[in-house]
Amino acid sequence: MRLSRSFIPTLKETPAEAQIASHRLMLRAGLVRQVASGIYAWLPAGLRVLDNIATLVREEQAAAGAQEMLMPTLQSADLWRESGRYDAYGPEMLRIRDRHERDLLYAPTNEELITDLARQTIKSYRELPQMLYQIQWKFRDEVRPRFGVMRGREFFMKDGYSFDRDYESAVASYRRMMLSYMRTFQRMGVRAIPMLADTGPIGGELSHEFIVLAPTGESQVFYDSTLEELDYLKSDFSYENHEDLAAFHGLINSYYAATEEKHDEARWEAVPAANRRSGRGIEVGQIFYFGTKYSDKMNFRVAGHDGKTITPEMGSYGIGVSRLVGAIIEASHDEAGIIWPAAVAPFRAAILNLRVGDAGCDRVCEDIYAKFGGAALLDDRDERAGGKFADADLMGHPWQIIVGPRGVAAGTVELKNRATGTREEVSVESALSRVL
Amino acid sequence: MRLSRSFIPTLKETPAEAQIASHRLMLRAGLVRQVASGIYAWLPAGLRVLDNIATLVREEQAAAGAQEMLMPTLQSADLWRESGRYDAYGPEMLRIRDRHERDLLYAPTNEELITDLARQTIKSYRELPQMLYQIQWKFRDEVRPRFGVMRGREFFMKDGYSFDRDYESAVASYRRMMLSYMRTFQRMGVRAIPMLADTGPIGGELSHEFIVLAPTGESQVFYDSTLEELDYLKSDFSYENHEDLAAFHGLINSYYAATEEKHDEARWEAVPAANRRSGRGIEVGQIFYFGTKYSDKMNFRVAGHDGKTITPEMGSYGIGVSRLVGAIIEASHDEAGIIWPAAVAPFRAAILNLRVGDAGCDRVCEDIYAKFGGAALLDDRDERAGGKFADADLMGHPWQIIVGPRGVAAGTVELKNRATGTREEVSVESALSRVL
Repeated sequence: MRLSRSFIPTLKETPAEAQIASHRLMLRAGLVRQVASGIYAWLPAGLRVLDNIATLVREEQAAAGAQEMLMPTLQSADLWRESGRYDAYGPEMLRIRDRHERDLLYAPTNEELITDLARQTIKSYRELPQMLYQIQWKFRDEVRPRFGVMRGREFFMKDGYSFDRDYESAVASYRRMMLSYMRTFQRMGVRAIPMLADTGPIGGELSHEFIVLAPTGESQVFYDSTLEELDYLKSDFSYENHEDLAAFHGLINSYYAATEEKHDEARWEAVPAANRRSGRGIEVGQIFYFGTKYSDKMNFRVAGHDGKTITPEMGSYGIGVSRLVGAIIEASHDEAGIIWPAAVAPFRAAILNLRVGDAGCDRVCEDIYAKFGGAALLDDRDERAGGKFADADLMGHPWQIIVGPRGVAAGTVELKNRATGTREEVSVESALSRVL
Repeated sequence: MRLSRSFIPTLKETPAEAQIASHRLMLRAGLVRQVASGIYAWLPAGLRVLDNIATLVREEQAAAGAQEMLMPTLQSADLWRESGRYDAYGPEMLRIRDRHERDLLYAPTNEELITDLARQTIKSYRELPQMLYQIQWKFRDEVRPRFGVMRGREFFMKDGYSFDRDYESAVASYRRMMLSYMRTFQRMGVRAIPMLADTGPIGGELSHEFIVLAPTGESQVFYDSTLEELDYLKSDFSYENHEDLAAFHGLINSYYAATEEKHDEARWEAVPAANRRSGRGIEVGQIFYFGTKYSDKMNFRVAGHDGKTITPEMGSYGIGVSRLVGAIIEASHDEAGIIWPAAVAPFRAAILNLRVGDAGCDRVCEDIYAKFGGAALLDDRDERAGGKFADADLMGHPWQIIVGPRGVAAGTVELKNRATGTREEVSVESALSRVL
């Protein structure tokens, strides 16, 4: 993308309403704009981050055998009356009445709808297990929206649901999603720590939260640092094998990790002192096993292998896709701006043309830009070098390729790594081979 | 995808509520399920079609220089009060009140919101032109939703908006989108005819509708068949060149095409008799040039080159993404089911294992399936051949690769082309090279 023609409105001033770094930086870097309280428009650079995160989620969901589908944002209140949650859910649920005076709601989660679809479709234990997910906009009418996309009202979320024939298979589904989540977060370049959690309004017996460490997090957390160092991508745990999944779950459970509500001083004291980490954390995902809670209430039964009916066991699995954009920034920024992990960065590199209109600089920039095929942002604005440096740091591209007249004469460009701050004079070829 | 493990619930019976072919076939082929009046869940196979259509739209929008962004589904009523449309829009607008008694609405279109974002951001004529678009869910509270996704309430739509410094540039943007749309529809495998149209509630001076011919269409249309035969992909009209765009627009205008409301008998009589086509049509897109209608009302001004302020000229550009799924089926089906154009088909091919459990059939099927890397559907259900043939025809895969014990012994498979119905005995290699 050429910055001179792009809709990426960076701001020099810090917006007064933004209290935390990610909110400030998302506004200043031109990623989002608020259009109503807790409701945001995603501008082109912001959408690229959201898409990158969603793509990683999709790839890992597919690898774990989950099928993508898409549920509507609005649904009938009747299903939620069946489960009893229409009345139980607080004023966070946005209730809507249509022109025929029928009650609708903007779904904050979809246990009822997916159970309804499953009971229409799945008639036999032979059609189980099923693992379905979507990435869709949801709404929670927060009383006091704040922190930008971290606690907005309209938010983008992956929600998945498993249906299994028995407890053993359901727990395997739960563990499969846990493994998938650890791989997903690691690929995004953030370290999320899995922690045993309360089940809250979804209910159920077993739940884990996935927490990214950041000073502005909403909860205090305590964990063994080994959990940050496990390599979930290289580990040999198979998604298919129940024993593998049990071993993986056991490994996770063997290291201490808890939020404040679940903190156990005795177990914490048993963690080697060098491994103890505590700090604030942001929840970016949560998974639940809740057995037959919804299938029972909504009368979802299938034929079992012995002719008797069985009630499928369920779990649900959430990742806060739009929230992750904020959480990643909270975990990865400095005074100058965002430091994007490469896997989610809106652009792999910025090409900074320090002398727009100079034939040599223009030619070198265009040559480099063409090589990236859309993955780089070309700063071709007629602006001073200082402004370009500041904007590139603010936007947080992993690499900056800086093209000035002196370098062009010498056949070199300057290559800056945003995370380390190192700058080197290198040939164009060498810059490209490093970055591409 | 393996059909035995998939959430693709095909139906043998025709659902009573479905009045038209696309609605019947989308339910029977397991693409969607209705979850409330005019509100649908997209099951895995349906979502693949929706995604394929959206991908083609994105590719052609990018080629035409449009930038993707994403606006929220809900917005404040205040912006629509500024334009005067909050009161002018009928009961089709879904009006919502949040917990703080603030008026929200579920956007049916986004001229106000995009104008608000543009006026916050664009301050000088030098930042124009800008072309922005999104693909997002919208809501229109139809009094009588029907015809499945063709006239649903929650629908998926691409809406784009252009901002230009003057009339000439604005008309060039309009023409660029017109060319982009013709290419997009042609790539999808449907023939959409561009027709001069009324501007309706969006307003403005110039508008074209894009109409797919189908017996169940909502309007009667009349056009010169040359418009069906122009090759918009091979034509040399550049997106960049204003003269090229004017020539393209002139070419389109030189052939007669009108809906009933705009029909002109005298001009129709002048069309060579062999070229006259009339029939029912389904609108799948519409574009508008409306000048300063919104920028003026919402006080969007930028600095001009001479120091005076100018009011940007605008246009808006819609494609009904979810509606297209229905429209394509209306235009391309037979008694047995859907006939997907290859570019939008959920699966390029179905592999039909006629003897599941037979070592030879299983091995040949798995080998072929692996070659497709997810682009084929493997019918590995333990069912009779007749049911598999019927489901494959119903689902409308462009190709069927039929694997039975006799063929396996002879080293061949049967290859069926869904559109032509031809069946041939060919080697596995030859089947793969034809289909992949």
